[in-house]
Amino acid sequence: MDCKPIKINGFKPSDGFVAELQRLIKREVIPYQYAVLCDEAEGAEKSHVVQNFKNAAKALRGEDIGDGFYGQVFQDSDAAKWLEAAAYSLALFPDKELERRADRLIAVIAEAQDEDGYLNTYFTVKDREKRWTNLLEGHELYCAGHFMEAAAAYYEATGKDRLLNVMKRNAEHIYERFVTQKREGYPGHPEVELALLKMYDVLGDPRFLTLAARFIDTRGTDDFYKREAELRGWTVWGNDANDGYYQQSHAPVREQRDAVGHAVRAVYLYTGMAGLAAETGDKELFGVCRRLWDSIVEKRMYITGGIGSTNIGEAFTADYDLPNDTAYAETCASCGLMFFARAMLRTELDGRYADVMERAFYNTVLAGMALDGKRFFYVNPLEVIPGISGVIATHWHDKPQRPGWFACACCPPNVARTVSSLGSYAYGASGELCCCHLYAAGETDFGNGVKIRCTTDFPYGFTVKYEILSGSGELAVRVPSWSESFGAALNGSAVKCDIRKGYAYFGISSGDVLEIELDGTPRLVYCSPKVAENTGCAAVQRGALIYCFEGADNGEILPLLLDANAVPEVGNYIDELGAVSLKVRGFRTVSDGKLYTFKKPETLPETLTAVPYYTWGNRGENQMRVWLPIGGTI
Amino acid sequence: MDCKPIKINGFKPSDGFVAELQRLIKREVIPYQYAVLCDEAEGAEKSHVVQNFKNAAKALRGEDIGDGFYGQVFQDSDAAKWLEAAAYSLALFPDKELERRADRLIAVIAEAQDEDGYLNTYFTVKDREKRWTNLLEGHELYCAGHFMEAAAAYYEATGKDRLLNVMKRNAEHIYERFVTQKREGYPGHPEVELALLKMYDVLGDPRFLTLAARFIDTRGTDDFYKREAELRGWTVWGNDANDGYYQQSHAPVREQRDAVGHAVRAVYLYTGMAGLAAETGDKELFGVCRRLWDSIVEKRMYITGGIGSTNIGEAFTADYDLPNDTAYAETCASCGLMFFARAMLRTELDGRYADVMERAFYNTVLAGMALDGKRFFYVNPLEVIPGISGVIATHWHDKPQRPGWFACACCPPNVARTVSSLGSYAYGASGELCCCHLYAAGETDFGNGVKIRCTTDFPYGFTVKYEILSGSGELAVRVPSWSESFGAALNGSAVKCDIRKGYAYFGISSGDVLEIELDGTPRLVYCSPKVAENTGCAAVQRGALIYCFEGADNGEILPLLLDANAVPEVGNYIDELGAVSLKVRGFRTVSDGKLYTFKKPETLPETLTAVPYYTWGNRGENQMRVWLPIGGTI
Repeated sequence: MDCKPIKINGFKPSDGFVAELQRLIKREVIPYQYAVLCDEAEGAEKSHVVQNFKNAAKALRGEDIGDGFYGQVFQDSDAAKWLEAAAYSLALFPDKELERRADRLIAVIAEAQDEDGYLNTYFTVKDREKRWTNLLEGHELYCAGHFMEAAAAYYEATGKDRLLNVMKRNAEHIYERFVTQKREGYPGHPEVELALLKMYDVLGDPRFLTLAARFIDTRGTDDFYKREAELRGWTVWGNDANDGYYQQSHAPVREQRDAVGHAVRAVYLYTGMAGLAAETGDKELFGVCRRLWDSIVEKRMYITGGIGSTNIGEAFTADYDLPNDTAYAETCASCGLMFFARAMLRTELDGRYADVMERAFYNTVLAGMALDGKRFFYVNPLEVIPGISGVIATHWHDKPQRPGWFACACCPPNVARTVSSLGSYAYGASGELCCCHLYAAGETDFGNGVKIRCTTDFPYGFTVKYEILSGSGELAVRVPSWSESFGAALNGSAVKCDIRKGYAYFGISSGDVLEIELDGTPRLVYCSPKVAENTGCAAVQRGALIYCFEGADNGEILPLLLDANAVPEVGNYIDELGAVSLKVRGFRTVSDGKLYTFKKPETLPETLTAVPYYTWGNRGENQMRVWLPIGGTI
Repeated sequence: MDCKPIKINGFKPSDGFVAELQRLIKREVIPYQYAVLCDEAEGAEKSHVVQNFKNAAKALRGEDIGDGFYGQVFQDSDAAKWLEAAAYSLALFPDKELERRADRLIAVIAEAQDEDGYLNTYFTVKDREKRWTNLLEGHELYCAGHFMEAAAAYYEATGKDRLLNVMKRNAEHIYERFVTQKREGYPGHPEVELALLKMYDVLGDPRFLTLAARFIDTRGTDDFYKREAELRGWTVWGNDANDGYYQQSHAPVREQRDAVGHAVRAVYLYTGMAGLAAETGDKELFGVCRRLWDSIVEKRMYITGGIGSTNIGEAFTADYDLPNDTAYAETCASCGLMFFARAMLRTELDGRYADVMERAFYNTVLAGMALDGKRFFYVNPLEVIPGISGVIATHWHDKPQRPGWFACACCPPNVARTVSSLGSYAYGASGELCCCHLYAAGETDFGNGVKIRCTTDFPYGFTVKYEILSGSGELAVRVPSWSESFGAALNGSAVKCDIRKGYAYFGISSGDVLEIELDGTPRLVYCSPKVAENTGCAAVQRGALIYCFEGADNGEILPLLLDANAVPEVGNYIDELGAVSLKVRGFRTVSDGKLYTFKKPETLPETLTAVPYYTWGNRGENQMRVWLPIGGTI
């Protein structure tokens, strides 16, 4: 099968949690990020992105390059990710002013393209001779990939093809080099592979499929980076050309067994691999993707869907090494895990992929953004202690509060584009089969004649209503692994479900109303005792939401224990968070104040309040924990 | 008061735990380390120490310097620490052959001294012009300090003064520069301060007291390191001259409040400060030392007496940050904590200092050395998981097995000198008052006419017998904080004890026999809930020994929980470890194998075996934990 995500304009949000998020992105994030790109946002770090493009255009015309290039080697990608998010947002909420802004930016970008199709301001402004001499660090293919994604999105959302044509020329330039001329190499930061598959999807040009396959299949087959490093004699950051693990070039991709290295690079690569397998029906390659998927979700993923256990190389570490306080769990990596899940669902409709996609989205990806859409976490720890977190060297990256725009501003636009395109994660179709992977209220056009309207208060409500607006076929609705029960009623009558691999299948026709009842009972979750950090602990979950305990509700968190026999209950709606809390019985440890003591501490019964993890850190600096020790009889 | 440690030849070990250790050091460590210094030890890293001295002598004579200097800037200190350990060992166990070796080494060292008294092979061989231009990193004063300690020890042990005269000339050279010529500066790595106080003790020359005070009192009063860095234009490691915290120059010492920076440097500095306060009766300075002591032992010390929570800068971090798995807890730092405790006991006879001295010795310092004396831990974690510990970047320094001699070989000789001089930590005197800080079997001459014989099987036996061999006066015997009871019988009759600040005082005369009965009941220990790592956990202690749980006895350790109501009991003698185990009721968590699950894991009752922490890692690679979660009703 090839169950493709719906087209970007196939989903129109109605009232509901996802729609609210998408409006927040449109109202706060997209305008703010645009101001950042133009260096017009107050208090933000200098971006210079737009100016870099203008300066690159000057360089191409042989004019003085003004104030030159500023920023990271991948600075261009900020503009691309903004354009992609803007495109998705325009598909949801048409907006002439935003579209004009995007058109203007595209015009600036188009001017910066070299006559041979090359497009990258870092190399165009700084040193054209160095183009393509440092694939390990240079991020040329990475930036190109982001612009290809943006171009495809903007074309699908608006029908305008100026950027698409720019990126087609760019992709042809890359094809010419790496396929026609057979030049060696593959990107240090994977991204172009998945983007070329989007270009192939939109343009149908088989060269782009060939090029994606070329990058994937040559990766790690030789010591290319080592030879490249010897030849070039310059470096961006001094990346070790001999350490293949960091950028997943330690082995040919088909021989890779564990998810290793820089977590974002890893899931971007795996997304490309899974996409290629879906396009070509390559079962061997899909098997590799499954193995890497299992490596992540069975051994290397936080309960919040975060991945990357260490800041050192922003990387995966070892099986079951999942420290809560020094976690990296980059927001972008969880976006990437969603990409990977979506790509896997094309070939194999199995709830396990959508379960993880949902886990990553409702917990880490959303935690990456403040509730007001104005500040962002790059790193998403599961335990925060003010005075330690964000302060001492080992915890420097784990900030107790969301900072504003980062010098390395990859996460905010990644959240913006993921949220704005959520429809394409929630819904997909394979022929007559219409798939509902996530519960997202709104109207969906599956592109196969079937249109539905979904109404739900998910993730706080557990009833999901699907009205079939037109067409007929089969509807596959995911049965989430967190739901102990799954009730379905078709046109008011309970129906016995045909459930296979985490999806319930229903024959549907226009006018049908399908109502699903999920189990929203809050529950304790336990972790494998192979994870040292969480032995003797439990967490609290309700539906898709992992909860956490914060100082704002409970005072000091470290002395708290969960009651082993506690049954968590639904608590109050917390206005400030727009979220429903949970209540759970626990204890507060009262010790004699000594660092070490023989005196058994008292444990005083207390009702503890938990709030959704994605809402943490929105009420000032305080202690936070996802996992609490289980106690009571200490 | 000034309760000084006994002279090094004042203690003669008899049978017992300490004597066995001292014999092990003599039999294994001292010969091996000597072979290392001479580059004659099979499988050891190149040392070149002896050759460095020979080459320095050649350089001074204007001859070809052969193969030059090899090693760290502080390489010389390895020879000094070996000589000091050898001196202490000779005081315990006379040995003509060892003494000849030491004499020969001293002759080599003496030849490397410059005519002005300067002694340092790094600068003498590499660049004499750079002498004294990099106090921040150069370690000249550090190496000098270690040779001063060695010289004093060798003189006291053997009566031979050749090295003492060399170091007297060297100390005079330093005095001339920093006092007479009023040149600025103080050592980047404190050590010379405490060493100058030893020189003052042995030689009575007030210049050395003045010089120690000079280094202590000018420290951190200005931006000396910054100015020095600007002037010199070269660096050893690129240490940041603006970060005063690393080497405790962030503030004048009298204004320092928290123990910060490199843990070894910190406690070496504080030892010098406490020694100076004892010599001069400086109450203000002693108050500062108490404050820094409290900062360590109340907020920044592991239960094992380890200090330094991070490998980044080998440093203290923040209050209550005491990670078990990524601990640094360098063996040398715990030696230094013993030095600091001993120095504090001179001014204030309080059991709290000796309690920590004992904790550091019986746990971290001894864990630093394999039971066969052949391998050493630099870093002493409290949790080890093979596959993670010593493997991934964040845990690289926490090795699951003791390696051999290190490239930076500071710890093995530090263990050797500390163990070999244990008598001076165990016993001290102030006038007629004879103090027993630690329980060490052997004969002690307090230097005030009182001689005693101590008989005990401590740390596994809890009866301590003191026979007064000659003299009379007052005996102060420490009442350890871990002992719930303290029984005393004088000449067979129970006596009521006069206990003040952790010491019991007894009038004694020649022929008296005092028997002390301590409480050796194994007990659970709890940690302050301010320490995130240990919430919901307990450890097991018996007397001075902290116990741990190892795979060799229990299989997989991570699934183990302690029973909250467990009463640990004395277990078997484990021949392989020469140690008595403990038994404690607990549970083994049996989960469904998933990374995250709603299924409450089973907890199967199990009797767990704990072994003394200092014996861990002697039976192959396995999981180890000091702190176990408390459970049972999961």
